[in-house]
Amino acid sequence: MLPYKSLIQIDRTSTIPLYIQVCNYFISFITKGTLQPSQMLPSTRILALLIGVDRNTIKLAYEELISQGWTESIERKGVYVLSSLPILTQKNNPDIKNLVEKQDAFIWTNKFSNAVHSKNLQKTQLAIDDGFPDVRLAPIDELMREYRSISRKFYGRNFLKYGDAKGSENLREALCKYLSTTRGLHVEIDDMLITKGSQMGIYLSAQLLLEPGDIIALGVSNYTTADDIFKQTGAKLLRIPIDDYGMDADYLEQILKKKKIKAVYLIPHHHCPTTVTLSMERRLKFLKLAKEHKFAIIEDDYDFDFHYANRPFLPLASIDHNENVIYLGSVTKTFAPALRIGFMMGPSNFIHSATALRELIDRQGDTTLEEAFASLFNQGEMNRYYRKALKIYKQRRDMFCELLKVNFPDEMVFKVPEGGLAVWSVFDTNIDLIKLSDNALKKGLYIDNGLFYKNELFSTNGLRMGFASLDEREMSEAISILKKVIP
Amino acid sequence: MLPYKSLIQIDRTSTIPLYIQVCNYFISFITKGTLQPSQMLPSTRILALLIGVDRNTIKLAYEELISQGWTESIERKGVYVLSSLPILTQKNNPDIKNLVEKQDAFIWTNKFSNAVHSKNLQKTQLAIDDGFPDVRLAPIDELMREYRSISRKFYGRNFLKYGDAKGSENLREALCKYLSTTRGLHVEIDDMLITKGSQMGIYLSAQLLLEPGDIIALGVSNYTTADDIFKQTGAKLLRIPIDDYGMDADYLEQILKKKKIKAVYLIPHHHCPTTVTLSMERRLKFLKLAKEHKFAIIEDDYDFDFHYANRPFLPLASIDHNENVIYLGSVTKTFAPALRIGFMMGPSNFIHSATALRELIDRQGDTTLEEAFASLFNQGEMNRYYRKALKIYKQRRDMFCELLKVNFPDEMVFKVPEGGLAVWSVFDTNIDLIKLSDNALKKGLYIDNGLFYKNELFSTNGLRMGFASLDEREMSEAISILKKVIP
Repeated sequence: MLPYKSLIQIDRTSTIPLYIQVCNYFISFITKGTLQPSQMLPSTRILALLIGVDRNTIKLAYEELISQGWTESIERKGVYVLSSLPILTQKNNPDIKNLVEKQDAFIWTNKFSNAVHSKNLQKTQLAIDDGFPDVRLAPIDELMREYRSISRKFYGRNFLKYGDAKGSENLREALCKYLSTTRGLHVEIDDMLITKGSQMGIYLSAQLLLEPGDIIALGVSNYTTADDIFKQTGAKLLRIPIDDYGMDADYLEQILKKKKIKAVYLIPHHHCPTTVTLSMERRLKFLKLAKEHKFAIIEDDYDFDFHYANRPFLPLASIDHNENVIYLGSVTKTFAPALRIGFMMGPSNFIHSATALRELIDRQGDTTLEEAFASLFNQGEMNRYYRKALKIYKQRRDMFCELLKVNFPDEMVFKVPEGGLAVWSVFDTNIDLIKLSDNALKKGLYIDNGLFYKNELFSTNGLRMGFASLDEREMSEAISILKKVIP
Repeated sequence: MLPYKSLIQIDRTSTIPLYIQVCNYFISFITKGTLQPSQMLPSTRILALLIGVDRNTIKLAYEELISQGWTESIERKGVYVLSSLPILTQKNNPDIKNLVEKQDAFIWTNKFSNAVHSKNLQKTQLAIDDGFPDVRLAPIDELMREYRSISRKFYGRNFLKYGDAKGSENLREALCKYLSTTRGLHVEIDDMLITKGSQMGIYLSAQLLLEPGDIIALGVSNYTTADDIFKQTGAKLLRIPIDDYGMDADYLEQILKKKKIKAVYLIPHHHCPTTVTLSMERRLKFLKLAKEHKFAIIEDDYDFDFHYANRPFLPLASIDHNENVIYLGSVTKTFAPALRIGFMMGPSNFIHSATALRELIDRQGDTTLEEAFASLFNQGEMNRYYRKALKIYKQRRDMFCELLKVNFPDEMVFKVPEGGLAVWSVFDTNIDLIKLSDNALKKGLYIDNGLFYKNELFSTNGLRMGFASLDEREMSEAISILKKVIP
């Protein structure tokens, strides 16, 4: 018999019932191979004596073991480890355990490597971020009020069961109305899919459009996460130069004489990272090329709502586009990044497929949150918010640019962005942004180190400097820390 | 000159400013080809007269057109459509518009077809569903209270900026504790990823493990959505018989002598659709096979929390498994389907990759909701809920099975399920479930038609009949409607 007295240590202070504790010990003996199939368990009487608990506790434990299929009771003989259990080898040497385990583990190819996101951004109070909205301006309280009232109203209703994978019909309706007034974009609510942020729209488009070896055209500088999404489909990235008018359509035209492309990824308002706006002339040119060469345009227009120079340009999707445009937008990139709601529209059958894929990934979005946003749109709250935020962000942009100009006349070059929530600053090559970022953090300011924006063709010593989330005081404070750490 | 007087219809009742209305008309003239590049716009004076608005309104409209890059102003001459715009052909015949568009649209392969989900489930008050929890029992009010208080507390804080892609640290900590007490599953919080429902865990696992042509083993009957997720990777499905003890491990063992498999997908508690529990003997056998043949076990244990017969069986992930198990669970399948929170754990580097992929798909989960659930766990609210629900669901199961037995002794065959929220009923072959479903709906009862559970090898005339979401009165009502429609 095993030395049960020393093997089983009952903990009377634990909230776990005694019989479960006993049961768990036996399971571990069996799975570790200490007790082998067909071996007998001690009698309830003896075990009770050995470990000092009531015999009924042991009986309960044994019943549990039997009902869970670990052991069997053979009449007049006793309780045995199930003879049909596979024999497990006992591991005597815990030192080699890890080694053995690694060798026996399943084999797979690691295709993805985790992006290294700085946790410092969340932990630092003061941050020059990538261009986030100021969550203090967003009507979070109103959103929560709606969220709560909707949950109450539908409490116990089918509402909390599964919903439409395309997302809340109310929100789609509100968004269609909003898009029609703000950008002349007319779309049927069935041709719209609510996504988790515009990023999911990029992912779904990539999965549907691209097969390994296909070519997708995108900027020499580009939103790096989009690059990663496209790469993982096995597609080849074809990089197109970006200048002050956005992506160079003529360059693409030349390429198209020799190569077929499957899609082009555009960020018309405002290119990430360099914040330029795609000119109307080029917008029309891309549409013309798409029609002639039958490729899809993925129009990531997440930044449409914050354009200061004039009314924002008409999206490609609002112009006659022969069903060649997949339009992506974000509600929450303009509101609060952690609340993830975006939308995607395009040809009916494409949206139908995208919905099917979305259903496989995560079934549906957060219905309650979607309904709450629908209410905010319908009450005019979102429009009020956009108007207010636009005004404040414009002031902040002007102030921030002024501060940069005055304080760092030789250290950086930038253009005042026509829109968006960040300034693209190119730093003097003598300034090491990694060091700058480290040193700023030591003084309480988060600022990115610029690595995120680099790729195999783009190595400018630049940085997106988000101004929108900083109020006047914070901005001065941030600049004064920057002054100390910029040599 | 174009007949602007009839072409431009100003709407003075609209909320859209007049100059924007004029501007929009010109944009549509240009994009439709009615106005061609280099063509002159009418003078502001003449247009103002023609359409009866103030001249300053026209001036504003023209300025907007210029700043948006549609037109240019040539001094002393007037305003012209930008000569560098690509020439767009005018479409005179609207009838052929659709045809032309289709021909010119981008080309792609439609890989996904939208699952046909019945919208009737959401619209019908009374439903025998697939096995959903009763959202009326869940502490939704407490959840909302937490949600609101967390939003208030962190209002304007970095909290609403991007968070950790693995999900809330607080929730992971609470879940690790919960899993350790309920199922002896010990896991580091870094080896856990919060997903949107357990379904996202299946999707991520499939994407990481399976290449086209790889083999994944799963049940002859199986959760159809999982089938679909695996299929879209290009993997081959190898179907293994399911009997009263779950998936047949011996059958798989024979196969493994000839074929290599990449993974096996198991639903140990309780198989979907047939609700059987995987026996302990087979659990150990699968672990042994996984070790010998180095395949991954995807253990979808979404139903662990509702097991009535005895304590639920130990998950494979809780037994010594040589890092071969990827364990998936759901918080919200037990709470309210629309609130999507699940978890996934496995070998560190696997979870690391899964997190990277998840970041590409949708960046992160709903931080606020995750934090709210963390609070409910920490306050013991979730434990109280599980205990309460388990008791009620057990009563409902017993009552429902009794009602089925008494009312439909010859029409259906079923076993009382040991756990889960549904009864797997096999109907007499004379009963057409599609008709039954249609007829029930006419009388106000939603019941599925069984098509969802069928596949190329499984065509049993069966149905999952969810009892958990029906209280006593609803159950009687549902049964009495069923009596009327079952011939």
